[in-house]
Amino acid sequence: MNVEFINPFLIALLNVTSTMANLKLTPGKPKLKADNLAKGDISGVIGMISPQTRGSLSITFEQGLILEIMQNMLGENPGKLNEEVSDLVGELTNMVTGGAKKLLAEKGYDFDMATPAVVCGLNHTISHKANGKKIIMPFTSPYGTAFIEICFEE
Amino acid sequence: MNVEFINPFLIALLNVTSTMANLKLTPGKPKLKADNLAKGDISGVIGMISPQTRGSLSITFEQGLILEIMQNMLGENPGKLNEEVSDLVGELTNMVTGGAKKLLAEKGYDFDMATPAVVCGLNHTISHKANGKKIIMPFTSPYGTAFIEICFEE
Repeated sequence: MNVEFINPFLIALLNVTSTMANLKLTPGKPKLKADNLAKGDISGVIGMISPQTRGSLSITFEQGLILEIMQNMLGENPGKLNEEVSDLVGELTNMVTGGAKKLLAEKGYDFDMATPAVVCGLNHTISHKANGKKIIMPFTSPYGTAFIEICFEE
Repeated sequence: MNVEFINPFLIALLNVTSTMANLKLTPGKPKLKADNLAKGDISGVIGMISPQTRGSLSITFEQGLILEIMQNMLGENPGKLNEEVSDLVGELTNMVTGGAKKLLAEKGYDFDMATPAVVCGLNHTISHKANGKKIIMPFTSPYGTAFIEICFEE
């Protein structure tokens, strides 16, 4: 998996959080995921399929960050992870994946997206099982950290 | 979503656990998922796409049950959820979805599967975000409970 393939996801998340939530995330360096799992409190997971490959993507948020995003996008902060926050994470997962899908299509990679599922549980971890390299991208903010992880079949 | 669409997943899980792990799960009645979320300790999540629809599926295990399945399939029980258990849940998710895909194809529903991601975290919940009905199927055993959840766009 090359950087041409990863950047669209990074760009899409930064776009979505800055335009929708007026929040500037600071992207860290994408890394191959080895032992150090991303941990977080709520995650969107979505499958992607193209004629050439298939894989999965997750976006994981720490509670403080997703509540700040909710506050900025919807003007309400429930103070905990509830069904509205879960729905928001599902929508963010769709928006980021949809944004990346569009950028990837311009480069000649056509993907179909499945629908997202959202996992809620303090300090959970996610492990992607496609047989390709696992890439993890951290995004920091004063409110907490987000991680995108992607993995595609080679 | 009709029962013709659900039964293949039920049958596939019962087949896999009985043939691979020599373990008889008792299926409960499929239900529309409302408030009562399935909770569990480790889950496989996978996306599915067909020409007509797209959706997501999860299989959630309580720790005691997945460790018993691991003991029966691989002759080892690590006593906790580690990377080997996570890989096993990924493989079970592939096997169950692949089995259901085959049965669905015989009925004229052709699906492509994405690749699974596995979530690990005590007492997490999963919420599927496709806009169709959410179906949850419980499976009980002396070692703990498993849940299959599926949701497809209408």
